[in-house]
Amino acid sequence: MNRESFAAGERLVSPAYVRQGCEARRSHEHLIRLLLEKGKCPENGWDESTLELFLHELAIMDSNNFLGNCGVGEREGRVASALVARRHYRFIHGIGRSGDISAVQPKAAGSSLLNKITNSLVLDIIKLAGVHTVANCFVVPMATGMSLTLCFLTLRHKRPKAKYIIWPRIDQKSCFKSMITAGFEPVVIENVLEGDELRTDLKAVEAKVQELGPDYILCIHSTTSCFAPRVPDRLEELAVICANYGIPHIVNNAYGVQSSKCMHLIQQGARVGRIDAFVQSLDKNFMVPVGGAIIAGFNDSFIQEISKMYPGRASASPSLDVLITLLSLGSNGYKKLLKERKEMFSYLSNQIKKLSEAYNERLLHTPHNPISLAMTLKTLDEHHDEAVTQLGSMLFTRQVSGARVVPLGSVQTVSGYTFRGFMSHTNNYPCAYLNAASAIGMKMQDVDLFIKRLDKCLKAVRKEQSKESDDNYDKTEDVDIEEMALKPDNVLLDTYQDASS
Amino acid sequence: MNRESFAAGERLVSPAYVRQGCEARRSHEHLIRLLLEKGKCPENGWDESTLELFLHELAIMDSNNFLGNCGVGEREGRVASALVARRHYRFIHGIGRSGDISAVQPKAAGSSLLNKITNSLVLDIIKLAGVHTVANCFVVPMATGMSLTLCFLTLRHKRPKAKYIIWPRIDQKSCFKSMITAGFEPVVIENVLEGDELRTDLKAVEAKVQELGPDYILCIHSTTSCFAPRVPDRLEELAVICANYGIPHIVNNAYGVQSSKCMHLIQQGARVGRIDAFVQSLDKNFMVPVGGAIIAGFNDSFIQEISKMYPGRASASPSLDVLITLLSLGSNGYKKLLKERKEMFSYLSNQIKKLSEAYNERLLHTPHNPISLAMTLKTLDEHHDEAVTQLGSMLFTRQVSGARVVPLGSVQTVSGYTFRGFMSHTNNYPCAYLNAASAIGMKMQDVDLFIKRLDKCLKAVRKEQSKESDDNYDKTEDVDIEEMALKPDNVLLDTYQDASS
Amino acid sequence: MNRESFAAGERLVSPAYVRQGCEARRSHEHLIRLLLEKGKCPENGWDESTLELFLHELAIMDSNNFLGNCGVGEREGRVASALVARRHYRFIHGIGRSGDISAVQPKAAGSSLLNKITNSLVLDIIKLAGVHTVANCFVVPMATGMSLTLCFLTLRHKRPKAKYIIWPRIDQKSCFKSMITAGFEPVVIENVLEGDELRTDLKAVEAKVQELGPDYILCIHSTTSCFAPRVPDRLEELAVICANYGIPHIVNNAYGVQSSKCMHLIQQGARVGRIDAFVQSLDKNFMVPVGGAIIAGFNDSFIQEISKMYPGRASASPSLDVLITLLSLGSNGYKKLLKERKEMFSYLSNQIKKLSEAYNERLLHTPHNPISLAMTLKTLDEHHDEAVTQLGSMLFTRQVSGARVVPLGSVQTVSGYTFRGFMSHTNNYPCAYLNAASAIGMKMQDVDLFIKRLDKCLKAVRKEQSKESDDNYDKTEDVDIEEMALKPDNVLLDTYQDASS
Amino acid sequence: MNRESFAAGERLVSPAYVRQGCEARRSHEHLIRLLLEKGKCPENGWDESTLELFLHELAIMDSNNFLGNCGVGEREGRVASALVARRHYRFIHGIGRSGDISAVQPKAAGSSLLNKITNSLVLDIIKLAGVHTVANCFVVPMATGMSLTLCFLTLRHKRPKAKYIIWPRIDQKSCFKSMITAGFEPVVIENVLEGDELRTDLKAVEAKVQELGPDYILCIHSTTSCFAPRVPDRLEELAVICANYGIPHIVNNAYGVQSSKCMHLIQQGARVGRIDAFVQSLDKNFMVPVGGAIIAGFNDSFIQEISKMYPGRASASPSLDVLITLLSLGSNGYKKLLKERKEMFSYLSNQIKKLSEAYNERLLHTPHNPISLAMTLKTLDEHHDEAVTQLGSMLFTRQVSGARVVPLGSVQTVSGYTFRGFMSHTNNYPCAYLNAASAIGMKMQDVDLFIKRLDKCLKAVRKEQSKESDDNYDKTEDVDIEEMALKPDNVLLDTYQDASS
Repeated sequence: MNRESFAAGERLVSPAYVRQGCEARRSHEHLIRLLLEKGKCPENGWDESTLELFLHELAIMDSNNFLGNCGVGEREGRVASALVARRHYRFIHGIGRSGDISAVQPKAAGSSLLNKITNSLVLDIIKLAGVHTVANCFVVPMATGMSLTLCFLTLRHKRPKAKYIIWPRIDQKSCFKSMITAGFEPVVIENVLEGDELRTDLKAVEAKVQELGPDYILCIHSTTSCFAPRVPDRLEELAVICANYGIPHIVNNAYGVQSSKCMHLIQQGARVGRIDAFVQSLDKNFMVPVGGAIIAGFNDSFIQEISKMYPGRASASPSLDVLITLLSLGSNGYKKLLKERKEMFSYLSNQIKKLSEAYNERLLHTPHNPISLAMTLKTLDEHHDEAVTQLGSMLFTRQVSGARVVPLGSVQTVSGYTFRGFMSHTNNYPCAYLNAASAIGMKMQDVDLFIKRLDKCLKAVRKEQSKESDDNYDKTEDVDIEEMALKPDNVLLDTYQDASS
Repeated sequence: MNRESFAAGERLVSPAYVRQGCEARRSHEHLIRLLLEKGKCPENGWDESTLELFLHELAIMDSNNFLGNCGVGEREGRVASALVARRHYRFIHGIGRSGDISAVQPKAAGSSLLNKITNSLVLDIIKLAGVHTVANCFVVPMATGMSLTLCFLTLRHKRPKAKYIIWPRIDQKSCFKSMITAGFEPVVIENVLEGDELRTDLKAVEAKVQELGPDYILCIHSTTSCFAPRVPDRLEELAVICANYGIPHIVNNAYGVQSSKCMHLIQQGARVGRIDAFVQSLDKNFMVPVGGAIIAGFNDSFIQEISKMYPGRASASPSLDVLITLLSLGSNGYKKLLKERKEMFSYLSNQIKKLSEAYNERLLHTPHNPISLAMTLKTLDEHHDEAVTQLGSMLFTRQVSGARVVPLGSVQTVSGYTFRGFMSHTNNYPCAYLNAASAIGMKMQDVDLFIKRLDKCLKAVRKEQSKESDDNYDKTEDVDIEEMALKPDNVLLDTYQDASS
Repeated sequence: MNRESFAAGERLVSPAYVRQGCEARRSHEHLIRLLLEKGKCPENGWDESTLELFLHELAIMDSNNFLGNCGVGEREGRVASALVARRHYRFIHGIGRSGDISAVQPKAAGSSLLNKITNSLVLDIIKLAGVHTVANCFVVPMATGMSLTLCFLTLRHKRPKAKYIIWPRIDQKSCFKSMITAGFEPVVIENVLEGDELRTDLKAVEAKVQELGPDYILCIHSTTSCFAPRVPDRLEELAVICANYGIPHIVNNAYGVQSSKCMHLIQQGARVGRIDAFVQSLDKNFMVPVGGAIIAGFNDSFIQEISKMYPGRASASPSLDVLITLLSLGSNGYKKLLKERKEMFSYLSNQIKKLSEAYNERLLHTPHNPISLAMTLKTLDEHHDEAVTQLGSMLFTRQVSGARVVPLGSVQTVSGYTFRGFMSHTNNYPCAYLNAASAIGMKMQDVDLFIKRLDKCLKAVRKEQSKESDDNYDKTEDVDIEEMALKPDNVLLDTYQDASS
Repeated sequence: MNRESFAAGERLVSPAYVRQGCEARRSHEHLIRLLLEKGKCPENGWDESTLELFLHELAIMDSNNFLGNCGVGEREGRVASALVARRHYRFIHGIGRSGDISAVQPKAAGSSLLNKITNSLVLDIIKLAGVHTVANCFVVPMATGMSLTLCFLTLRHKRPKAKYIIWPRIDQKSCFKSMITAGFEPVVIENVLEGDELRTDLKAVEAKVQELGPDYILCIHSTTSCFAPRVPDRLEELAVICANYGIPHIVNNAYGVQSSKCMHLIQQGARVGRIDAFVQSLDKNFMVPVGGAIIAGFNDSFIQEISKMYPGRASASPSLDVLITLLSLGSNGYKKLLKERKEMFSYLSNQIKKLSEAYNERLLHTPHNPISLAMTLKTLDEHHDEAVTQLGSMLFTRQVSGARVVPLGSVQTVSGYTFRGFMSHTNNYPCAYLNAASAIGMKMQDVDLFIKRLDKCLKAVRKEQSKESDDNYDKTEDVDIEEMALKPDNVLLDTYQDASS
């Protein structure tokens, strides 16, 4: 409402009350102005009402929402379904232009602003989460794997001879496929066992660099967030190798923004050596739906080059989700989530420790992994071949999601490459185990239910083993779910793939 | 509500009425069942209420919506913002798995069903729109350009020697960049002028194939939908060349689904020769927000290969949009839109013809282009260098979107390649012109407003020319928009880029 | 967004585009300003986007949405459920104050504006619909019956001796109960049969006025909209009687706004005689949910007195619904609905005429009733006692809603008063009949389906009659609804009550 | 989705996952079934997803949502605006029928169920809140005042001679007007001062009963929730008088559900004496929008009589709001809110005590009032006539809502009755004071902000007083709201009315 509208309003109801309402409006506007001027995540989360006002104001700046617009092009932001228009807050034009996913669209000033502000907010949060010297970043509506591919495709133009990507092994399919898809040959560096932990074999990396020749290597592709007992790569040392040999360095930081340790590793790597880009998932770090990632780096122009590599426009949906989320949370809300995650990690760790000991198992000692934990399934595995997979199946049917059992000796071929001991990040880990993770947004109730159900499943499997029987474990439990009649192996296989992908 | 709930309901209100309500429920369920069983777009669009019931039913099959779920993984579909959850109808897990964007997710049966059904519906619509023998297709949450890149990256693994992509020139940046991004060298084939039309130079294509050698060619990359006076490529003949030389053929069918002519060309090409995949935009053909495309083809296993190339999960948002849209419209509703578009094309064509003649210009004769039209700006161009660009700027500020003025002699460099006569698809088109298109969803009111505003702008430019003055054209018009104080050239440049991208 | 925000926006994306967006915003604001200044229904319906912007702007003027508010009262507009807040667009304070339902609330300038504007729009529409000289009106969140009660309670204070209300009979329970609830004794004036029509017995009215004495009569309570063969009361003549004897006149115009004839009667009545207030339903005339009414009149101060009679605040929900509806439709949209209704009335009339003749029945000749029609069920009734009621039950179970069968000889007691021939508005109508109405929003498809199903039901009943059998009529039809196993009488009874209430 | 749909789903994605999803569905259905069978508020609040499923399921049982319905009546639940339909979850038919607001509608089984269940849930909550022996209740879409009127109108039919209502004075307009509107003469019983408290003068009540004669008295109309220093009426004793003299007793329990003390008084009154009905506001007790009330009582048939008095259908909106709210909260959530309110009352009480002492004022000692508090404004009042009203105005413009200043000597005439000392519930309270209340949903932040702002305002008024100046108090504060240029008296007057109504 403009001045004339307020004046008209004053004639309808008391001027004093209208003026009070008009004042109140200013506080919403003030927040919006601060956001646009500073480009930072507000400390305190916004009210839903301010948020919707803001989105509404942006949307009416797009030509598809102009009351007097007439469109005679092939792409005019027309929408057939009112449900669809509404769920996108009437942002229809997407983000970017053919030249550049970060470019401004003449037809869509509002969507363009949305895109700029989101990237700016996300940059702010990355700094806050520990990578203080990050130079630029952008949200891309593709998941982590495809975003890594885009980074590799960008590097190709700078390194015409390159054929190989050096990759310390991590048994997760999409990061492996990201290299294949980009058309490069992954050079797998096996991890070394230090105590219970699987860590980067730096010597093997350097030896391989020398063997293949730096010019033939597109980049080193390292990983922070990963399932225990693998731990984050030794980023500092890898970054130094990259700097020494003039090799680019791309970091898969999939769900690392939520961990100050992972972020610290990146910050340190960039300080002492070379990191060209680090890529993180939106959904895993910001509790939004799957489908977006952030590509960030320390050199503004390289990040811009990547953004210019994306051919054509792109969905604004992931940007919109993360914008809504960050404005709702505020930086304080996000920090609170990070803090709670850390606390939940300790709690989960303690609970698993206790439970494992009750079953003569143990929590693997993996102090370098800040998110994922592993508990041995030794005794289970000894007695019976299929007991480990059966446990996985039982947990699945009891609505425990995200727990992952890792048996010994699994072999898998991905895009022509064969991995022995697949899922365990090494050819021969000493024992079978089970993973659980404390990720952002986890609640104490999740931990408690998990421990309770795991306890019951372990008990049931034990009992069966002792009876040499297959199907009569105790099924009475809090959530009364009838056991699904399925071959455990099939489900398990899927469970594996899920866990590992 | 289950049987017991209905029974309880009957005790609260009259059994007769509850039973009537229960009957009514069955008609919704019946529609849902038909959809799941047949996998076809319903003839009549669904009621919003059936649609929401269906989405709700699917969503509660995803583990993040299980009432008893406990999550201990790193990706559990948690959502921080209720607004975000709601706008996605609580589908959070996205689609696909690390191995394959079409794969089923154990954690998300509902999202997986959504994905399968959407692809099935879209396949049905592609058949209905004219490509009857299409074998498979899938929705990918990337715009057309990046989807073409994915096709090229997939082909790379099958054609290790290939370096080149044969590409009949079309002045649109993202399809050009899609080849660059994939790491290939585009070989531009200039078009030939036939009457007013710019058409594929088949001889030059074949000559180039022989010159470079088929093995070194990744594919021919042709185009259907394009701005007049360029017309769709001669797909049949290109398809035959591809078949003869054993070269793959990828068709950029960006906004071609809406035109029976474009679809017919693809169908014919596949019948007489070789087409490996054709790619179309979701937003341009289905009136949904920007950000998705459909990759389709005649060989099921090749389409599956492409879907397996996408590393990692992906956003379900474009799939959800097109699902909602198609279920709301029904196949009858979609056919009606196609019919109206065709009618609007005739209407637009007639109106431009009339107007152009009033200004001693003419409508270019481009009968092979079913969507886009062009009107000469000869007299304008003769008198004054900047008059054409000024017209573009004036249309923009008057909220005419999508119209595109094409001056002579524009030169542009894209990813190191220089295009003379950029925007006109040829080095030297005989005259400057203006484009307008009749795309799906266009209304008669769009045409009328456009013609009215164009008339005013042309009048104003003429007047100025005669006065040798720059800034006093008549600005009184229906939509009272004050002229924005900007250097016309700048806006024009943007307008160009927009139009051409 | 204010000026500073736009300036900040210009630094993020191109100033030219932001300015264009800013211009576009003004057109929304312009519409809002016009509404507030003129208080009239816009000719053309508003875009959903303007509408939501407007509601949002109003809502943030209410204290419960102030960002800095602190509430220490007992009624602060706090909301426990976000779903509830959202569905009310965050208008929580309702309308009115303890003194007056039309009064302004200091805590809620936005809700107060909403209330004022809604009343103003509704007044505009009442004029447009034919009562040009209406002086004032207000929306009240009570259905027609309770609103009539409020009018009677207001009159009580002006006519301390009054005990009776003169009421030309109409067999509809809630208008009858509105008098009982207000504490008065209805004096029923039986209708006279003129041709097929039942019309007001003016002589009986005047005789009763003289018999009881004007001072003892609270008012005459007349009716416009009613089921055929009853027709609207002779308002002009009644109004003259009221004027002559100094008796107030309250008109139940329940669903009369949709009919120019009903509105014309009111306008004429007020011109030549006396009408104090006329009451109409919101849902029946404006296609909104049940629960609101409009109390209107020709004397501003009397309408204000009524509004001051409502003790306490009231729900804003009906006002909000009608506001959204009228702004969406615009006056043109509403006029179009009125026109379509009229056309549908002719269509329905013709279709029933044809069908009735095929069954040796006839359409009753009721030219004074502009909304409701009646078709005789003579032959049906002759053969079999229960055939008429059975027909009603069959139509109900076949999802024909709103059709009403009226058998002969039904007797009903309401609040101690016994009505012979209940439902037929007279003690002894010559024959049984069936009613159908053409109300606002009816579609041709409704008529066609109704005629088709009625045809089938009549056929089935006939067949049964000839077979002297009870349960084997043909049930194959378009909507495949299994016959519900219920005693027809029970359903019928309900159907009666529904129809008549 | 029915069995066939799930089977079809299993063919599209893995049967194991579909079955898991199907299991998950059952837990939602289980909750719905429990609700329908028990009719009790669930202990734990429902998930939004269960809630929406439930509402959706109910809505499709209404005939306006039948896919095959054809409507030929005058009221078919048609909706013109999709926004309106959606915000009502497609419940359009309202609740009740002409005969009875609690009756079942044949056309709307879903709305009828909604109505029954809501009333059942609300009854459960009233018991839980302390009135264990309540027999029946119903939600009515009218605020407290009009609901009281309905009770009085119902009693009229049972007590033909009655003219008077005995009413211990409480200075709140709408409960006073509720008697006037119903057509009765309020007999005001002045309160007696006991310490700081104003309490029921039982002797005066009984004397008045004897004086007027029980048959001429419609009922005693008592009040629980009220502003300090008035305290809840002595319900037990009043109930005994009512029982002894055979006089009905209606209790205005406006915002008393939130207080166990108020509820206890009602329970006790009914146990030892007579209470016919008690009426409470929905918005004030359940944090929903203004517009609904609950009429409850200990005699099932009397409550039914009242519900049958409401002539015609009514809005379902307030019922829907309270249903959503209670299902979201669960009884545990509601109990938690009650507990927090009590704690906040202590906190507010302590903070006001401290502040008042700092200004040589004191907290009035009103231990019988469980919700409202009062702080003297003696020193303020002594120095300056207008200081008290000025304080009210200052608080209002600083976005303190709900605080109420009560000067001495205010006189007001309501419907012809003159009240001396209006707002203070007595002709001559010893001093001016300020009210604040701890109502359900209040947050600690509300209290803290209030105390801070009150402190500043008091300081400013003092300063002014000492300067004998009118307009220069210190305005720097947290919320930077410019002082509105209005005559303080005007605002104050409004503030008064607001507070008292």
